[in-house]
Amino acid sequence: MAKKNGPIEFWFDFSSPYAYLASTQIDDIAEEHGRTVLWKPFLVGAAMKVSGNIPLLNQPLKGDYVKRDAARFARLYGVDFTLPTPFPIASLAPTRAFYWLNGQNADKAKLFASLAFSAYYADGRDISQPDEAAAIAGQCGVDAGAALAAIATPEVKEMAKQATQEAIDKGVFGSPFIIADEEPFWGVDRLWMVEEWLETGGF
Amino acid sequence: MAKKNGPIEFWFDFSSPYAYLASTQIDDIAEEHGRTVLWKPFLVGAAMKVSGNIPLLNQPLKGDYVKRDAARFARLYGVDFTLPTPFPIASLAPTRAFYWLNGQNADKAKLFASLAFSAYYADGRDISQPDEAAAIAGQCGVDAGAALAAIATPEVKEMAKQATQEAIDKGVFGSPFIIADEEPFWGVDRLWMVEEWLETGGF
Repeated sequence: MAKKNGPIEFWFDFSSPYAYLASTQIDDIAEEHGRTVLWKPFLVGAAMKVSGNIPLLNQPLKGDYVKRDAARFARLYGVDFTLPTPFPIASLAPTRAFYWLNGQNADKAKLFASLAFSAYYADGRDISQPDEAAAIAGQCGVDAGAALAAIATPEVKEMAKQATQEAIDKGVFGSPFIIADEEPFWGVDRLWMVEEWLETGGF
Repeated sequence: MAKKNGPIEFWFDFSSPYAYLASTQIDDIAEEHGRTVLWKPFLVGAAMKVSGNIPLLNQPLKGDYVKRDAARFARLYGVDFTLPTPFPIASLAPTRAFYWLNGQNADKAKLFASLAFSAYYADGRDISQPDEAAAIAGQCGVDAGAALAAIATPEVKEMAKQATQEAIDKGVFGSPFIIADEEPFWGVDRLWMVEEWLETGGF
């Protein structure tokens, strides 16, 4: 199959530890293969209602595994990780802040997403709070007060809603979820397969 | 961490397509790192009752993904794969046949498991049927009639039950599931991580 060069879609929920882990790797993987990445936060809870999934940590046995697994993944990647309290969180506020920023500048939005993930998973800040999300936006070259006001508007709320609907329409049922050349890959544990896909042009 | 050399436990349900895929790789991975593999079939349905999981293909969105994903995994590994009908199946008969053989000779049991997986996932034979399971045992240097009789005995039924209980006690909640040096790895998509673990002695 001929190699393609379109952007990779990186779907994620800000509350997902595996999405945080993937977020520390995805741009490097894409760059190595001459690709760019579209970061696309969404509300995975809405997709889970469609798919019948239940949150990982609510499941006996599996929940214990996931806690251990996320921590070892972070060691392997060499990134800071502490399962925060509260967990999970509603990711509405950071998702809205992301799309508001994205409407102005995609790089600012991506910087916001990285900072928000670190704030939650490395520093334990509750990014579900609008003022925390707005403060992080304030580190991205926009006014924090303007961010706080923006994420309460119907227009920005609609952006987050539409992104979630787009995810469901594309069959995105978990977080993280990567789409490369219309091929879906679910989970940080598939980044090796995404690399293989990009390297070979598909299999 | 110092490298260890104990056997790797390979837990699987005969009905699991991802376990079939993993079964084609696990011995090679172990051998490359000077390890052996204990093949341990169990009834994942019982573990799912504990963990609250539901079968993959019964989930909207996720079910479609899994069908596509299993097929591409098989292409990547270069192994035959067709999602059989019926699917899933009750894996009692092959699990019992496995443990009956294993009581005599571990190599025969492993050969049986490989043949049973191929019979189901490459040739579409319904290995949930005791006579099919027994016929496959007959290809492993034992009498098929003796196998058919054996898997109906309380002793052999108890072996399969105990294996499933051992799986649950060890926190095995899915299939395939690999335990190396007491470290748990869930899913064929983690074989790369098992390799990394064996290579580095742990992380």
